Amino acid sequence: MLTPGHDAKDEQDEPELWRLVERRTVYEGRFVQLYQDVLEGPAAPEFYEHVRVADGVRVVALDAEDRVVLVEDQFYLQGRRMLHLPGGGTETGEDPALAAARELAEETGWRAASWQSLGAIHPLPTSSVARTHLFLAAGLTPGPLHRDAAEQLMTVRQVPLAEAVALVGSGVITEAGSVTALLLAAQTAAERRPPG
Amino acid sequence: MLTPGHDAKDEQDEPELWRLVERRTVYEGRFVQLYQDVLEGPAAPEFYEHVRVADGVRVVALDAEDRVVLVEDQFYLQGRRMLHLPGGGTETGEDPALAAARELAEETGWRAASWQSLGAIHPLPTSSVARTHLFLAAGLTPGPLHRDAAEQLMTVRQVPLAEAVALVGSGVITEAGSVTALLLAAQTAAERRPPG
Repeated sequence: MLTPGHDAKDEQDEPELWRLVERRTVYEGRFVQLYQDVLEGPAAPEFYEHVRVADGVRVVALDAEDRVVLVEDQFYLQGRRMLHLPGGGTETGEDPALAAARELAEETGWRAASWQSLGAIHPLPTSSVARTHLFLAAGLTPGPLHRDAAEQLMTVRQVPLAEAVALVGSGVITEAGSVTALLLAAQTAAERRPPG
Repeated sequence: MLTPGHDAKDEQDEPELWRLVERRTVYEGRFVQLYQDVLEGPAAPEFYEHVRVADGVRVVALDAEDRVVLVEDQFYLQGRRMLHLPGGGTETGEDPALAAARELAEETGWRAASWQSLGAIHPLPTSSVARTHLFLAAGLTPGPLHRDAAEQLMTVRQVPLAEAVALVGSGVITEAGSVTALLLAAQTAAERRPPG
């Protein structure tokens, strides 16, 4: 706890501000669970609300000409189609890398020979422990699609990586995992390029 | 609806796949609201679960030496301290740009003379309409802090922008808005730099 004359910088190893007393399950849905954590500790709220959703995955899949695979489909909640990287939710217990390969194949038909992790982000770390795992894939070969019912109007296109990054800058691509993975992939590509 | 022999690419102007019949409020908390949307349309689920949380804001605040202001504090839900950009949730009806200036001042004491939008991302577009609004701020002058109770152990540091970007690459900074804003700011800085 912060006391007068006490420098917060000394508190780096401070244990948790708040301790969990009881977790109440408020809602257990198919895709969303909601909890109230009853807490104790300095200035703890009466309870802390948070949601659980599946971890997500997004893939920057590059072909031999450094073109990236983008998909576009209807996002019910946003009331419009959105352009984004292939990806989606992990199944229960599914390894994120396998989920990424599965989603890429299901949504676009592409299989990738080489895979590299681009790390993971926390989309809403105060409201959910969910992460979105990011991958860079290359060595693409075509295969069949396996889209689910909600993805039947999905379209696929391939654009140069620089063009996809420009679509981030112009606000066309806004899904957090897609935005981050594209910017990180562009950084990786720039580092790979020989100087001069 | 997709019919045999019909190219999905022709469906760009297709209206919504699903139509909202009724929105049920499952939970109305202080920070999180949860809804079930009853839908009709092809292959519509029985209902669609989604949550409402406040839009977020994140600020890349650069000083005259291109050093960026980072803050670190305890994220209860993640069970650890996280390093991220200044920012937080917008208040009801609050303009995101004003929220960003307010959060920067409250958390770090810094006031900025110039502000530029870096756009907005959708952290979890299938589960929430929430967005995180991103800003680039410069012309910093110091002022008093106004941290809330949960932020009393927050620490502030200033690091070169390139170092902050490296902290994204190494997985130290993972909050989606911070990651995106830092990568976009680095891109902006690179474009600003004279060639050669």
